[in-house]
This record gives sequence, structure tokens and C-alpha cells, in this order.
Amino acid sequence: MSKKILENLDSPEDIKALSDYELEELADEIRTEIVEAVSENGGHLASNLGVVELTIAMHKVFDLPKDKIVWDVGHQCYAHKILTGRRDRIHTIRTENGLSGFPKRSESKYDSFDTGHSSTSISAALGIACAGEMTKDNHYTVAVIGDGALSGGLAYEGLNNAGRHKKNFIVILNDNKMSISKNVGSMAKYLTKTRIRPKYLNAKSRVQETLEKVPAVGKPLANSMKNTKNWIRDELFGHRDNIFEQMGFTYYGPFDGHNIPQLTEALEAAKRRRGPVLVHVCTIKGKGYEFAEKDPKSFHGIASFDIETGEPKSSSKGYSYIFGKYLCSLAEKDKRICAITAAMSAGTGLETFSKKYRDRFFDVGIAEEHAVTFAGGLAAGNAIPVFAVYSTFLQRAYDQILHDTALQNLHIVLAIDRAGIVGEDGETHQGIFDVAFLNTIPNVTVYAPSGFAELEQMLYKAIYETKGTVAVRYPRGCEQALPEYYEPSAEPYSLYGNADSEVIVITYGRIFSEVCSAGNNVCILKLNRIKPIASKAVEIAMQYKSVYFFEEGIKSGGVGEKFGFALYQSGFRGTYSLTAIDGYVTQCTTKSALHKLGLDAEKIALKIEREMK
Amino acid sequence: MSKKILENLDSPEDIKALSDYELEELADEIRTEIVEAVSENGGHLASNLGVVELTIAMHKVFDLPKDKIVWDVGHQCYAHKILTGRRDRIHTIRTENGLSGFPKRSESKYDSFDTGHSSTSISAALGIACAGEMTKDNHYTVAVIGDGALSGGLAYEGLNNAGRHKKNFIVILNDNKMSISKNVGSMAKYLTKTRIRPKYLNAKSRVQETLEKVPAVGKPLANSMKNTKNWIRDELFGHRDNIFEQMGFTYYGPFDGHNIPQLTEALEAAKRRRGPVLVHVCTIKGKGYEFAEKDPKSFHGIASFDIETGEPKSSSKGYSYIFGKYLCSLAEKDKRICAITAAMSAGTGLETFSKKYRDRFFDVGIAEEHAVTFAGGLAAGNAIPVFAVYSTFLQRAYDQILHDTALQNLHIVLAIDRAGIVGEDGETHQGIFDVAFLNTIPNVTVYAPSGFAELEQMLYKAIYETKGTVAVRYPRGCEQALPEYYEPSAEPYSLYGNADSEVIVITYGRIFSEVCSAGNNVCILKLNRIKPIASKAVEIAMQYKSVYFFEEGIKSGGVGEKFGFALYQSGFRGTYSLTAIDGYVTQCTTKSALHKLGLDAEKIALKIEREMK
Repeated sequence: MSKKILENLDSPEDIKALSDYELEELADEIRTEIVEAVSENGGHLASNLGVVELTIAMHKVFDLPKDKIVWDVGHQCYAHKILTGRRDRIHTIRTENGLSGFPKRSESKYDSFDTGHSSTSISAALGIACAGEMTKDNHYTVAVIGDGALSGGLAYEGLNNAGRHKKNFIVILNDNKMSISKNVGSMAKYLTKTRIRPKYLNAKSRVQETLEKVPAVGKPLANSMKNTKNWIRDELFGHRDNIFEQMGFTYYGPFDGHNIPQLTEALEAAKRRRGPVLVHVCTIKGKGYEFAEKDPKSFHGIASFDIETGEPKSSSKGYSYIFGKYLCSLAEKDKRICAITAAMSAGTGLETFSKKYRDRFFDVGIAEEHAVTFAGGLAAGNAIPVFAVYSTFLQRAYDQILHDTALQNLHIVLAIDRAGIVGEDGETHQGIFDVAFLNTIPNVTVYAPSGFAELEQMLYKAIYETKGTVAVRYPRGCEQALPEYYEPSAEPYSLYGNADSEVIVITYGRIFSEVCSAGNNVCILKLNRIKPIASKAVEIAMQYKSVYFFEEGIKSGGVGEKFGFALYQSGFRGTYSLTAIDGYVTQCTTKSALHKLGLDAEKIALKIEREMK
Repeated sequence: MSKKILENLDSPEDIKALSDYELEELADEIRTEIVEAVSENGGHLASNLGVVELTIAMHKVFDLPKDKIVWDVGHQCYAHKILTGRRDRIHTIRTENGLSGFPKRSESKYDSFDTGHSSTSISAALGIACAGEMTKDNHYTVAVIGDGALSGGLAYEGLNNAGRHKKNFIVILNDNKMSISKNVGSMAKYLTKTRIRPKYLNAKSRVQETLEKVPAVGKPLANSMKNTKNWIRDELFGHRDNIFEQMGFTYYGPFDGHNIPQLTEALEAAKRRRGPVLVHVCTIKGKGYEFAEKDPKSFHGIASFDIETGEPKSSSKGYSYIFGKYLCSLAEKDKRICAITAAMSAGTGLETFSKKYRDRFFDVGIAEEHAVTFAGGLAAGNAIPVFAVYSTFLQRAYDQILHDTALQNLHIVLAIDRAGIVGEDGETHQGIFDVAFLNTIPNVTVYAPSGFAELEQMLYKAIYETKGTVAVRYPRGCEQALPEYYEPSAEPYSLYGNADSEVIVITYGRIFSEVCSAGNNVCILKLNRIKPIASKAVEIAMQYKSVYFFEEGIKSGGVGEKFGFALYQSGFRGTYSLTAIDGYVTQCTTKSALHKLGLDAEKIALKIEREMK
């Protein structure tokens, strides 16, 4: 397909001159561009296809970069990137040194706030708007937030505070009835009701008409009637019943999110109001690409796929699948076990559980804080809650773990998925902080399997043989190659390799595979329980001259630092070499990231060889 | 005053047999008991006086401990404690080994969930209710939450999820128009509107009446009129406009929270409904104690005071005051500076700022997550936001610091108050985790003053001479005694004492005073910037045979561990002795806690002497 209009766009400013017909053409061209780019590198397809018209309308109505747009989560920013001078690099999206899959201030002056985690947009945009007001800047600030992100408490905190903002603040609610899975919770139900407002509007007009026709009989009744009519009119026509109006916003909508003229008109109307406005826009996730429209969940975030068939280029069963399957087998026998997800039932492998044990399955929406405190309540009621969550999103629940479960020593299990490097999603999604922040919390135990069988054993141990708050953390994707001598174990540590070596290599999780592949003829200490560290493991390391620790996690506060400190404190006077992660990790394949971080077999081998000489 | 009724109560069950008159008497007796206890030990007075009748009504209607009550924040549980077998120990509240000022499962079977931080009750209670449902338990679960706590996103996440719960789940909204300060935000405004509902009810009855009187003229109009009337009735009388109804709850209220018969009736009605019910109760903070009613903010959480005059027994200006005053002086000259608080303007010393610089002052409600992300937005808009927050509450914003400010290297300042031991509030309020969790986040700098002058210097340095996310952390209360040789400094470290000693003692913050008072004739290295640790400081420590590190913070992931590790890695082979905090710290005076933790002058002196021998 030719992309005549796109090819002639130099800046988003040019959009303003296009006719309605051309804008529609432009939408088609952008869609093709997005499908092509994502089929190649993977990425967030369905959400991007859903906001093509909305993005065009926003660039038509607002003046970027003076006006600011904050994209919630940010994975729907592809059309925005294409329209803001990054079209030539859109095929590099999510690749090493390529465009980020999320907005990045460092990438473009058209990106005004970095996002990645959900529900931050209203708060951030409000900050930008208030800063503008402090300098008498009159430009518009717009937060674009999905109905899924609206299930996060931070979005509510943002709304609660933005309701008193005085001017030029607009929230666009991009309502596609979905988080990644189908959206849940009362707010989702409420939006469904609001979506069918046309009917309600009809009822209103009927009331209006009827009221006008009612004859007045006698003076007192006529007066009373007049007041009553006015009051009814106020009550019914003022949108007062709308939940966003009650939160201080002027509510406009719902509008068809794929009708550019209607969207343009709505946004122009929003601009004319001074106070905060919420524009409710209904979009279809995956719009315009048949396979994605039919199955938006699968096409939310996907790997590369075949455009003609919609089939992923590769597929395999990973840790999440093993976790979900094993948890089902335990739940079959134990009715106390229940599972919690924060809008990630598919990603965390809980789809089967959700169908088989509906009464014990809780999708709480994008609400990790609630998920943990709720798990605390379940535990206080003698259930056994297992919260499956991506490492990066568990960061949201630090205080809830510390204050609502660990402090009371309530028994909950955190199944931490996507632990370690996740690859193409980049900085905002790396699972490299969970170990360090859990290390700071008393009464927490953490296990780290190096393979599927260990995941099962450790999950069992976490559920039945460990007290308090227990985490099992495992990486994205599949089991790595494991050596023949490897024996799955849920004991605090396992010892392999050449016990007579002067060198011992310590690691945990999937880096164990890398260490084994490195093939140095050394002793290997694999930590299975990384918190608390077994004193026995420290004693073993004491016997070696050189200790190498490889950790796929942040160095500061991580296991390697703690192990090293414990070792020295025990009197160790050899050399201790720690390789761990020293800052945020940008996007690239997991393989490439591990290599750059010195955590793949090649770099591990080199490091040990060099220093063994 | 005699307490005849209280004296004859053996269990909360006995309340059910009392007459309305006796219940009122009981309320008076409990009030007296509470004022006496708090005047002695300090505590949360106003909130406790506000819920006396509500607590009595709840114990009359519900069957504890089979039915469960979760008290949000929990500082309003005194009447509950008095009524559930803990009256004889109520005078020990908040003292060492005494009753906790918050609900504690370990203290009584009548406490079903530990609280302390805000907005957790709905989530926790929902967990308890769901666990009950899994075992076919039909008892009631009740969350009691204040309107202030409702400004926290976690409460919204709880509501959003509880709205679909099927049975026996009740939320009591204790609406006193206050957080600690006056409640803020759109939800607060909304509640104000709801509170004046009686008027609205009158209007409704008028409509009803009028509708009934309207004559039908001609058949078509009559029919249309009939439908219209029905529709109007549904719309106006269904409570549908109520925000809680929209969130899936049945809404009852508002009720007079000091009228026991009315409360009892409302709670009985709530019990009869199957789905989730929200009972809106209006109470007066400080009710029944003149001074507290007039000034509930001052009587929220207070130190011991004189019952006759309402005057605190002691008063002095602490770190918060110095912070607020100095920030005002900077803001006077620099219009970019703005201040944020999460419902703690008085506690954090921002009262004057809030009045002097209204346009640059943001009280965001109990919403620490929003506060940080909002600060990120302000920084992106080139303002200089300073978020003053208690250490323990900043735990809530771990991900927001990591993801919304540090990752983008946005310049915000965290003024961390109540850092370290806070004393009588106990485990849930100790500020002992901030250093460790900030240690895990890249691009964050942390300063720790040991006195007022340093607080000012460091705040200046944080605002003007440090990039990215910068924290200045300082303790509750006043400056400790400082030695004559002390020179305030915002440089990374200061060196004092006997440089020729073989022993060096390292510390930061207020423990510096304790180390000086310990009076051992050693070298003292005071860290002023605790993150990142200056390599020069490590080099200095290298020159000593024995290094002692004293840290008023959690050991795991703290500065002491990191310093020790860095020291050993640099080749240090002397002895390194670290004294830091190893778990949650229970309530007692700060003095006593520091002593027990080995962090006061006496224990420090002993430790060094013993090992110097």
C-alpha cells in the first residue's frame, strides 16, 4: 500500500491542513505502518490500532509540543510517534538502540512524560498543568487514559485532585472495555452503563417533552409544578449523576473513537471549557486488523507474527504456563488455595485456573496494592492466597507487603513472574528490583528456581512449608538448558561442579544455566532460597580462595552484596567478585542484555578465566 | 466520674442487653476513659471521641469475634479496645509493653486485622469476607473507613473490587470532614454535597407529590406521562446518582453518628441486605471534649496534655518547624519552589507555607503515590517540587519514585520527616525503611542532617546543587545535643574526634549526637550524604583497624551493610562491627527504643569500650 499522505507529512502541524477525507486515508496508512512494524519486532498491537483516529484528532486540535499529551501506560503511542517525526525509525521500535515502545522525553520534544506502568497519566499531567499555571503558561495538558488503567488507585487519586484544577486540563478516557484482559470491577460496569447513554438521552428528551405538555391546573399547583419542573430538569439534564462530574470534571461523551470529525469537535468543545474536562471516547481494540479485532487479548502485547495469518512466528510454553498448571493441580486437592491477578490472567498463566476455580480466582484489575492487602485479608481468614504478578508491577505494592502482610506475618505467596531482564519493553518493565526491595522487608522468604521442576518444588514449599510472606521468582519465557548433573531442589542451596577448585561461582535463577554453560572447571553454588541466605552457604563459600557472584538483579541491596558482606564478616579474606546490575537497563533482547551486563555464559567464562590466570 | 456501666461489662456481648439510656451513659463513660488515658500517654484523641457511639452501635448489632471489623488506619480503636476486655490496660496504651494504639491480632481475638497506614480496610475486609465465603461462613465483615482515608487510591481499588461481592459485606464511611487536616479533593466535596441530602429528600417528596397531582390530558399524553413518571421516579429515588451506588454498593445515609438508636437501626438494615452496603455516618471529630471539638487538628495525634486546659504538657519546635520555615524563606525568593503534602500540612511544618504561597501549595489528601507522580509532572514542567512526607508513608510511593521520577532523572525533593524511630506509634509508623528502599533505586541521592543548621544546608543543596531525585531525611522532634567541635556541613562527610585512634566510628543523622555523647576517644566519621556513599569516606575508614557503624535504620539493605561491603572490597581487613535495626520495632519511647537497639550513647560507649580492650 502506498502511503502518500504520511510521506508528505513533515510535522504534526501539517495534519491541521488535511481534509476529512485525507485524515481518513491517513488513518489507514498509519494502521498499515503499525501492523508492519509490530509484525516484525513484536509489540503492543491492539491498543495502538485502537487509537489511530484519536491520535490524529488530538494532533489536529492541539498544538504540540506547546500543548502536552501524557499517554497512560504509553504502549499506545505508535501513531503518535509516526506523526511526530519518528516514522523513519518506527521499524526499529523495541529493538536495541531503536525507538522505545513507550513515550520517552529523551527521544522527542513531543513526548512530555515517560510512562510504562499504568494509571500515572492524570497525576503527571496535573503536575505539568500546575507547573504551567505557576508560570502563567496557558497551554493545554491532556492525559489519555484507558478504562483498564482507571482501575488503578493512582488514577483515582489523580482524578480526586484534578477535579479542582482551574483551567486547560483535559482527560481523555479511551474506553475499549479492556485492560489486557477484559476489564473488571465496578468502574468497568459503570462505564458499560454510561456507554449506552444514547438511550438515556432519548428518555431525557421524552421527559422534557412531556414536562412541556403538562397543563397547569390551578395556581398553586402551577407554581409547584414550575419549581418541580425546573428541579427535575436540573437533576436529569445536568450530567450530575455522572461519576466524573461528581469528581469535579465536566463530562463529554461518549463519542465514537473512530470518527475523526466527531472526535475533533469533541476536543474543540473540551478546549473551550475552562475547568477540567473528561472526554469519554469509545474505541475498538485492534481496530482495522481482523485478527486483532477478534482476539485483542492475544494481540495486546505480542511477539513478531505473520501478517497474513495472524499467527505468532514462534511459540513455546514458559514458566508462567508451568506455574498456572501446577497451581491448578494443587488447588484441585486444597480448597484453601486461591489465585489473584492484577489484570494479567493470561500473562501469568492463570487462564485455566480462572475457569476451573472461578470462586477462588480474583482478577482485581490493575491494582497491585489492593491485590496484596486483599491477599492479607484472605490469609487472615485462613485461605492460602497466591498473587501472580510481574516483578516490575509488584514495585507498586512495597508498602502493602511490608505493612499489610509481612508485619503481621500473614501467610501469602507471591508468584513473581518476569523476574530479571524482560527484553524489548525496556527500562520500565525490567524485573530487576524485586529481590533488592524484598531484602529490606523482615519476615519475607524468597525462592528462585532455575528450571520448571524447581518452580514446582519451590511453589509447593512456599505454600506448605514456609511461614509468612513467601515469594517465588522466575523469569519470562522458557527454561534454559540445564546440565546433566543438575538436580532440581527446593533446599536452600545446591552444590555442583569441581569441589577441589580454588574458585567458587555463586548464582541463582536462570543465570545458573549461563554459569554451567560457561564451562569453567570450578565449584558452583546455586542459591535456591535467596532470602534469608543460608549461613551454611556462606560457610561453604568461605573455603574457597576466589568467590564469583553473578546476579540478574540490581546490585545495590541485592543478594550479591549481602552475601559478600556476610562472607567478609565471617572472616573471608579471599577475593570476592560481584557482577550484578548497576542501573536501569534499556531495551534489547534478553540475550543481548545479559551479554552487555556480563551475565551470559561467554562473559562469565571470560571473567573467571581472566582472573584465574 | 463513676463508670458503673463500664464496670459491669464483661464482654461486648453484654452491650446487647443495655437500654438506650444505658447505652448513652456508656458512651459518656467511655469518653471519660479515653480522655483520661490520652491525657496521660498522648495518642489519637479526636478521632476516638468521634466514634464512641458508632463503636457501641457496632458491638450491639454485630457478633464479634465471629463477625469481623477492620478499622481503617486503626487509631480510632480505643472505644473498641475498652469494650473488648482491654479496659483494665487502656491506661497503658502506646507505652512499652502496653496496649498498642492500633488494632493488633496478636492482642485480642476481637481485632481481625492490623492497621496503621491509611486506606487498607476495604481491601483487607474484602479478603476476610472472600475467605469466609470459600468456607461457607456466613458472618459479616465490616470495614470502618474515614472520609480522609477515602482519598487514598487503595480505598478506591477496594471499593472497585468490593462492588461485586455478593453478601454480608458492609463498609461504614465515618465522615467527619477531616483527614488529620481538613479533608481535600473532589471526593471530599462530593461528600459535603451528600451530607445536605435532607434538603434533597424534601425536593424529592415534592416531586413525588406533584407527579401524583398532575392530571392526564388525553390518552397519548396520559400514557407518555405514566412512563415518564415512572422513569423520573426511578432516576430520582433510586439513589442511582450516588457515587457509591455507581460503584456497586447499596448506599444508606447519611446518619447522625452520635445517635445510637439511629445507628443501630441503620446497621440492622445493612445486615438485612445481601450485597455490599455502604453506610454513611456523620460524626464530629473530638465530640464531647470541648477543646478537641474546637480544634480537632491539634487533638488528632497529640502528646500528653492537661485535661482542664487542653494544653500540651510540653512543647518545642522540631525539625518539621525548621524545615517549613526555611522552605518558606527559599520560596520567597524562588517562584519555582512548590510544596506538596499528603494530608500532613501541620505535621510536616507546612502550615505557614500553605497560607503564604497558596498557589504553590498542594495538599493532595492521603495519596502518597499521586504526590510523587504529580511532583514528577511538576518537575517536567520546570517547577521545583518539594514533597514533605513521613518516612513510613513514603513506603507507599516506592514505584512512583523508581518509575515516575528517578528513571527520568526528574528533579524532585523528598523531605522525609519522622525518619528513624518515632516511638509510641510503634511498628506501623517507624521510619526505618526509607534508606534501605531508596538504596535500591538508581539516580537517587540521600542526605541526612544531624541538626537544624544541617537540615537547612542540605535542603539548599538538594534543591539547587543536586540533580535528579533527592531526599533529605530527618527525625521526629528536636535537635539532639551537639558537641562544641561540631560544624554543620552539607559535604558528603565530616570527620571529628581523635584521628590517631585505631578505632573509627561511622554514623549519620541523629545518632551522631549519641556517638559524641558516648565519649570514647575515637575518630568519628559522620556521613552527611548517605547515598551514594563517597568513595573518599571509604578510603578514610580503610586507615583504621576497627570500624564501628551505628545506623538508625533497617540493617538489610541499609548504609552500614553497603559501607562495610565497599570497605572490604577495597581491601580492608580489620574488624567491621555494624549495629543497625534487624526487624520491626515495637512501641516505646524513642529513648527506650534506641537503648534497646544498641543505638544510644550508653550502649554505644559500652560496645566500643568492650571491644577496644
